[in-house]
Amino acid sequence: MSRPDRQYPSKVLEEAVEAIGSLPGVGSRSALRFALHLLRQPAERIKGFAAAIDRLAEDVRYCGECSMVCDGDICPVCADRTRDHSIICVVASIRDVMSIEATGQYRGVYHVLGGIISPIDGVGPSDLTIGKLVDRLDGRRGEPTEVILALSGDVEGETTSFYIYRQIEPFGVKVTTLARGLGFGDNLEYADSLTLGRSITNRQIFKVWK
Amino acid sequence: MSRPDRQYPSKVLEEAVEAIGSLPGVGSRSALRFALHLLRQPAERIKGFAAAIDRLAEDVRYCGECSMVCDGDICPVCADRTRDHSIICVVASIRDVMSIEATGQYRGVYHVLGGIISPIDGVGPSDLTIGKLVDRLDGRRGEPTEVILALSGDVEGETTSFYIYRQIEPFGVKVTTLARGLGFGDNLEYADSLTLGRSITNRQIFKVWK
Repeated sequence: MSRPDRQYPSKVLEEAVEAIGSLPGVGSRSALRFALHLLRQPAERIKGFAAAIDRLAEDVRYCGECSMVCDGDICPVCADRTRDHSIICVVASIRDVMSIEATGQYRGVYHVLGGIISPIDGVGPSDLTIGKLVDRLDGRRGEPTEVILALSGDVEGETTSFYIYRQIEPFGVKVTTLARGLGFGDNLEYADSLTLGRSITNRQIFKVWK
Repeated sequence: MSRPDRQYPSKVLEEAVEAIGSLPGVGSRSALRFALHLLRQPAERIKGFAAAIDRLAEDVRYCGECSMVCDGDICPVCADRTRDHSIICVVASIRDVMSIEATGQYRGVYHVLGGIISPIDGVGPSDLTIGKLVDRLDGRRGEPTEVILALSGDVEGETTSFYIYRQIEPFGVKVTTLARGLGFGDNLEYADSLTLGRSITNRQIFKVWK
């Protein structure tokens, strides 16, 4: 049922609800619920919450090498000499690094683009860290020999992959991309026909996992 | 698919995710999404968000009369002399006041209990503002003649209503409660039998709304 515009009893509360409501997918009803939840907490807890957010602006740094978010000048992955610095995995976002790290399957290093090329959203190549990637290859710090383009499979991702490929081609490194096909455990019945078709075309030698 | 514990690349990010994840119904995945969303904003915006939350601890006041959240010593409703100060509507929470105000149907004043009696959650009568309600009736500030118990219809709500009723009975004010029955527009078919049964027992004279 539609109601007249909500009247806030307090400007302070209203501004907190507005701030929380700016988060993606959080409507004004949820934002109010969150604000009132905070309001019920002891003052120190509310202040601790606010301080933790404030530190995102104050204390977060980006790795000088791979542009990953970190607390110092260089991120733990780039600082780790046991990682394979000859392989650079190019990803769109911080979250992608966390997702790949969570698999425990990758021992190389990363390069975080900070987005993908999307003319509709006004994101061009110069808004991303592509220049820094070129510098990494140009200077050959850590002797990179392979670049994995781990971007999404949609038009923007493919466009970005292609753009980067053209930029890094001159350095003669091996350029690879993520394997695409049916997910492990996926049922053929529910796979989209593009994925299924590509899975047949790019079929692989049957391997027994030990 | 289960993944090993998420590794945060930054302590600052991790603490922000933890803070956001303390909100009701926000899991660690959503909290990370929110934190990364904030991280993509300009520093001033992040700081503005944090400041809006911080002010919840610093600047929010509670009305000296009805305990509603407000910016000053007294809330706009209690300060409004055109409202009917002879009727006090007792509600559990700030949100209930906002919901009733949004209907535009009530011209009396409020009393916010700050919760309901719930032994399971360790909330007893002394944790609520019942004493302040008794003081309002005892002093007869604004000459209250009616108290509406607008609490939920569950066991805790009924218990709280009954407890308050016993406390305010000596003051000889009229004590009322919200009408319960089928919602306007509700279909009989989908009504629960308790509500439907009570709706028949408490049937009302048919009124033509003009």
